[in-house]
Amino acid sequence: MSGRPRVCAVIMAGGSGTRFWPLSRKSRPKQFLPIATKKTMIEETVERLRPLLPPEAIYTISDRAQAAAIRKLIPDLPRSNVFVEPMAKNTAASLILATARIYHQNPKAVVLALPADHLITKPDVFLKKLRAAAAAAGQNDVIVTLGIPATYPSTGFGYIHFSGSCSLRFGSEEFYPVLRFKEKPDLEKAKRYLKQGRHCWNSGMFIWRAEVFARKIEQFAPDFFSFWKRIIAAIKENDRPEIAAVFREIPATSIDYALMEKAEGVLMAKGNFGWSDVGSWVSLADIWPKDRSENALRGQGLFLDSRNCLVYSPHRLAAVIGLRDVIIVDTKDALLVCAKKSDQRVKDVIEALKKKGKKKYL
Amino acid sequence: MSGRPRVCAVIMAGGSGTRFWPLSRKSRPKQFLPIATKKTMIEETVERLRPLLPPEAIYTISDRAQAAAIRKLIPDLPRSNVFVEPMAKNTAASLILATARIYHQNPKAVVLALPADHLITKPDVFLKKLRAAAAAAGQNDVIVTLGIPATYPSTGFGYIHFSGSCSLRFGSEEFYPVLRFKEKPDLEKAKRYLKQGRHCWNSGMFIWRAEVFARKIEQFAPDFFSFWKRIIAAIKENDRPEIAAVFREIPATSIDYALMEKAEGVLMAKGNFGWSDVGSWVSLADIWPKDRSENALRGQGLFLDSRNCLVYSPHRLAAVIGLRDVIIVDTKDALLVCAKKSDQRVKDVIEALKKKGKKKYL
Repeated sequence: MSGRPRVCAVIMAGGSGTRFWPLSRKSRPKQFLPIATKKTMIEETVERLRPLLPPEAIYTISDRAQAAAIRKLIPDLPRSNVFVEPMAKNTAASLILATARIYHQNPKAVVLALPADHLITKPDVFLKKLRAAAAAAGQNDVIVTLGIPATYPSTGFGYIHFSGSCSLRFGSEEFYPVLRFKEKPDLEKAKRYLKQGRHCWNSGMFIWRAEVFARKIEQFAPDFFSFWKRIIAAIKENDRPEIAAVFREIPATSIDYALMEKAEGVLMAKGNFGWSDVGSWVSLADIWPKDRSENALRGQGLFLDSRNCLVYSPHRLAAVIGLRDVIIVDTKDALLVCAKKSDQRVKDVIEALKKKGKKKYL
Repeated sequence: MSGRPRVCAVIMAGGSGTRFWPLSRKSRPKQFLPIATKKTMIEETVERLRPLLPPEAIYTISDRAQAAAIRKLIPDLPRSNVFVEPMAKNTAASLILATARIYHQNPKAVVLALPADHLITKPDVFLKKLRAAAAAAGQNDVIVTLGIPATYPSTGFGYIHFSGSCSLRFGSEEFYPVLRFKEKPDLEKAKRYLKQGRHCWNSGMFIWRAEVFARKIEQFAPDFFSFWKRIIAAIKENDRPEIAAVFREIPATSIDYALMEKAEGVLMAKGNFGWSDVGSWVSLADIWPKDRSENALRGQGLFLDSRNCLVYSPHRLAAVIGLRDVIIVDTKDALLVCAKKSDQRVKDVIEALKKKGKKKYL
């Protein structure tokens, strides 16, 4: 290995969304669905990184069942790169465990912490940005994050308030000091953010040197530093029960809340790489190709007098007549027919099914 | 057999509707679907007649495949009572063939000619009406028809214009001279009919003595009388190829058009027996039980923020969110999602599928 710190990626693949029900199920969350493209989102995420990183430098972190799925989907990842969490615990715990494992191998390694379930339509721009971010984080004691320039006043994302004066430049890439991470705003606030132009969407992508992550935790998230130290010690001893025990104690919170909202020395680069978090069925309407009546189809379908509908029906022929703005998702054992404006209520179906004890549909 | 003419029913089961696609298919038309109740419509039609007629007095007429289905569904019908048409030819040909077969056995037999695919919610009233109609047709040289008092200005039914002065009475049942059979009207006409109160919907149910049918054909539909005579002769000789040959020559038209619109000596009784022709998915919304939000469900479903929807989903769980007035029909290989106001376009799906050569869905 050269003197240059090694760069690696940690793909956070442990999420268990409900917004793509009935396609997504407990055992098959969004990152394992081929919804944005014809490959699963996690495959796409790994594919995207290949020009930058060899398989040995790509890690994933998820629960045991998901790890098994990842090994099947991406067989060339080294088995030991597929980290397993003893339980689902949100991103703070995931990134403490994953970064600690990498720290144990090389404290100077630059970690690209990336969600497994985002769509990026300009992978070249994305890689260029990652390269610059890795260089910035490799050479400075900072955490870099990628902010997505807002295109509408979304109330579904967290925001990053950044300073207008660029503090660091790498080639053509500019890095801005982060002033504050902000939670999902109400519509009024979101409109103000959009107008001001000093807020980006929080993509949940972070770049840090393992040792810098440790130091930031120590300094800005001291409650979590004891977990860090104990996990590092347990990894050193290869004491798996102790690793699991510490992991279980870490509060189930996001890295945003645990660290980023409190940390100083965070820089943001603007992510103009065609990002989408693919947050719900409606978001796919922007991604899938559409016919002249703005209907989007995956599978077999037939539209009569219909507009702006989204149909996923790989197993059956779906005939749609006289409808507008309707989402239809047909799976082997469950069917969703939902007004686009109501797509936030898909999760309520899952609640209702839970209450009725209909576990097979969860 | 006593001197009283024998009464029998001919159930016309040869229809091949498209309006219940995707549940109805070429090989499984409406009368073979359990859509109004949990039994198929033809089973219900036979069940209804049982208090009046023994199985030996119940005949059906349909094509060969449908005949096989009927024998399976109603195993106690004598095999020879399940008449087979050599091809689908509308009701004129069906009723000429069926009445000729019965005439050959007993010219004085009273025939109740009944569609296989109507719903009747007051079977007792219906049977009382049939008894009176059979008596009237048994003792008078008339054809009796049952008219359905209009409840709204339907443009989907033919109408019977009847005289206000009752010409015949059997117990409490009154029979009115038919002035004219009328084709489906436009809305304006339909409204006038409803207001005047001298028009009933044409239910397509007719009651005649076989010999009277023959005489009416001779007198008012002379073009069809030669078919009648040739079929009678062929039946006498048990010459099946000749029966088939004559049948094939009969124009494919309705008995309404071939005979009823031209015949004199037709009486109408009012059919207040909870009749519905169950003409489309929308019509089922009036028949199936509904929840507090007016949603009707057969199978497994879950409604959130939805109103006035109709869901048929016996195989899969259907979750419906934020929709109004939508029909959802889920079958093993095809799914229909259709605005109620567009349900007349279901047949256009079939046309589109034909054009695309997708025969498996027809």
